Amino acid sequence: MTVAVLSAMTRPLVEPHLPDWVEARWFATTEELMDMIPDAEIGWFDLYSKEAMAEAARRGERLKWFNSLYAGLDHMPLDLMAQRGVVVTNGAGINAITIAEYVVMGMLTVAKGYRDVVRAQDRHEWLLDSPGKRELCGSKALLLGTGAIGSLIAERLAPFGVTVTKVRRSPAPDALGPGEWRARLGEFDWVILAVPATPETDGMIGAAELAAMKGDAVLINIARGTVVDQDALVETLRAGRIHAAFLDVTTPEPLPADHPLWDLPNAHVTMHLSGRAQDKMIQRSAERFLANLARYGAGEPLEPQVNLALGY
Amino acid sequence: MTVAVLSAMTRPLVEPHLPDWVEARWFATTEELMDMIPDAEIGWFDLYSKEAMAEAARRGERLKWFNSLYAGLDHMPLDLMAQRGVVVTNGAGINAITIAEYVVMGMLTVAKGYRDVVRAQDRHEWLLDSPGKRELCGSKALLLGTGAIGSLIAERLAPFGVTVTKVRRSPAPDALGPGEWRARLGEFDWVILAVPATPETDGMIGAAELAAMKGDAVLINIARGTVVDQDALVETLRAGRIHAAFLDVTTPEPLPADHPLWDLPNAHVTMHLSGRAQDKMIQRSAERFLANLARYGAGEPLEPQVNLALGY
Repeated sequence: MTVAVLSAMTRPLVEPHLPDWVEARWFATTEELMDMIPDAEIGWFDLYSKEAMAEAARRGERLKWFNSLYAGLDHMPLDLMAQRGVVVTNGAGINAITIAEYVVMGMLTVAKGYRDVVRAQDRHEWLLDSPGKRELCGSKALLLGTGAIGSLIAERLAPFGVTVTKVRRSPAPDALGPGEWRARLGEFDWVILAVPATPETDGMIGAAELAAMKGDAVLINIARGTVVDQDALVETLRAGRIHAAFLDVTTPEPLPADHPLWDLPNAHVTMHLSGRAQDKMIQRSAERFLANLARYGAGEPLEPQVNLALGY
Repeated sequence: MTVAVLSAMTRPLVEPHLPDWVEARWFATTEELMDMIPDAEIGWFDLYSKEAMAEAARRGERLKWFNSLYAGLDHMPLDLMAQRGVVVTNGAGINAITIAEYVVMGMLTVAKGYRDVVRAQDRHEWLLDSPGKRELCGSKALLLGTGAIGSLIAERLAPFGVTVTKVRRSPAPDALGPGEWRARLGEFDWVILAVPATPETDGMIGAAELAAMKGDAVLINIARGTVVDQDALVETLRAGRIHAAFLDVTTPEPLPADHPLWDLPNAHVTMHLSGRAQDKMIQRSAERFLANLARYGAGEPLEPQVNLALGY
């Protein structure tokens, strides 16, 4: 029997479909997970505490396959897991639809000044003019990151009349190369960060990049807080040198209650909720896990696998 | 010379392009408009007060062409203008892009519970879960009204994976007939009102229609407040019998400060801002007016003309 340590949350969806060669052990608490994981060949665990999640992986000395519903696993001990030969499957694409929807929402709410409409309703005040007067139509977006999320964003923006320029390794008519986009930053109304968190993307948007953006540009970050030099961003927003930032991710998370981003009138903080704004995540993940379990049993490759050297 | 009475707001855009047969008179206040309008053959005026706007039209006894940047002119004395043989051109389509953008924003913000994210940021509170967990993807929308706005909404919703069913006079695979949609109301996650304000659409959504909607349906009204029986809607929202209403329009406007809609947690009031959330309205209207002025001079038909019998 192959021991699989799985979250009790997934039990109703997974247990009825388990093949007979799997002995499932269900954990309900982090403590139970820590006790069970040393025996596991297969482990699927996602903890709110990234520290605890990494610790469980370190304790999983017999793990051959680790699965997560998260897309970003940069907090995991990937080097150690690579050494141990663990195959890692992640949630890439599971949240992509929801995140793409969130990005379009972010663009529209910033364009129309919708936050001030919400506040006016709370005051029972009938505004006579729109606090935001932008149209998406005719605007230009630079999209960094061309994974599942980036593609879904681009598809959704097309009928809005937004010209989307991607950054790609290989040249294409609607794309810029990795060495080209910085010099062209001043052309875009929207700069959308949907890159994976890797050493290469760490601090990718710093003071120089922020200074190169249009004065009315909007930065949208649904990648990782670390992709942006946040101190430089705070300074940029404070000085009003770009129009706004819509930040699903920050450094750190949660953002401390006294952090300046909360109160900056041009900072929109959405608390890493973009992927959670759905009710299908567990179901989609369970379906994918079961499909991979069948492949695992048949000795076939699992997907999508994280490249442990690249980190995504 | 043909006397044209025009708003001073449009002067910078219009005056440089006026043909020599036009004698333009520019009004800056409602009083000036009332004084000037009896001499006008051509009049373009849009006043915040619908009463005053109608009164100006009544005083315009020599008017042959009246132009407005508004799409809905149900507040104007259309019968009288028809008797006098006035050709009426409106702003149909001028605001359509912006309104379509606003509708998608409304759907997304309701789906993700974004209003509560705004309020949480104002409290410096890092939410651990999304207050809204809907995806547009896989949902179904009923779209009443298939003018310019309706078409633009449908185009924008397509890549989100929303199945849009229109209501049309003529049968089509993705459409219901005028006698069919009421019986099918229970199938839709979104009911979007984009109809013109006419006697036919007055009170189109009453207690029976609200009761027929799904318990988690969302009503979106960007047409006119009068299209919905607002008392019945308040009761429906109060009882939680539908998920929410996103109301760009209400009865009356402005909504009085003590109206129950302001405080209902499932009522989203956007103060008729949907068409104003852009900065291109005057420019687009001026371009259209000048094109029509050339047609007028050449004796060609103006467009888009309001059918004064139908009212739109």
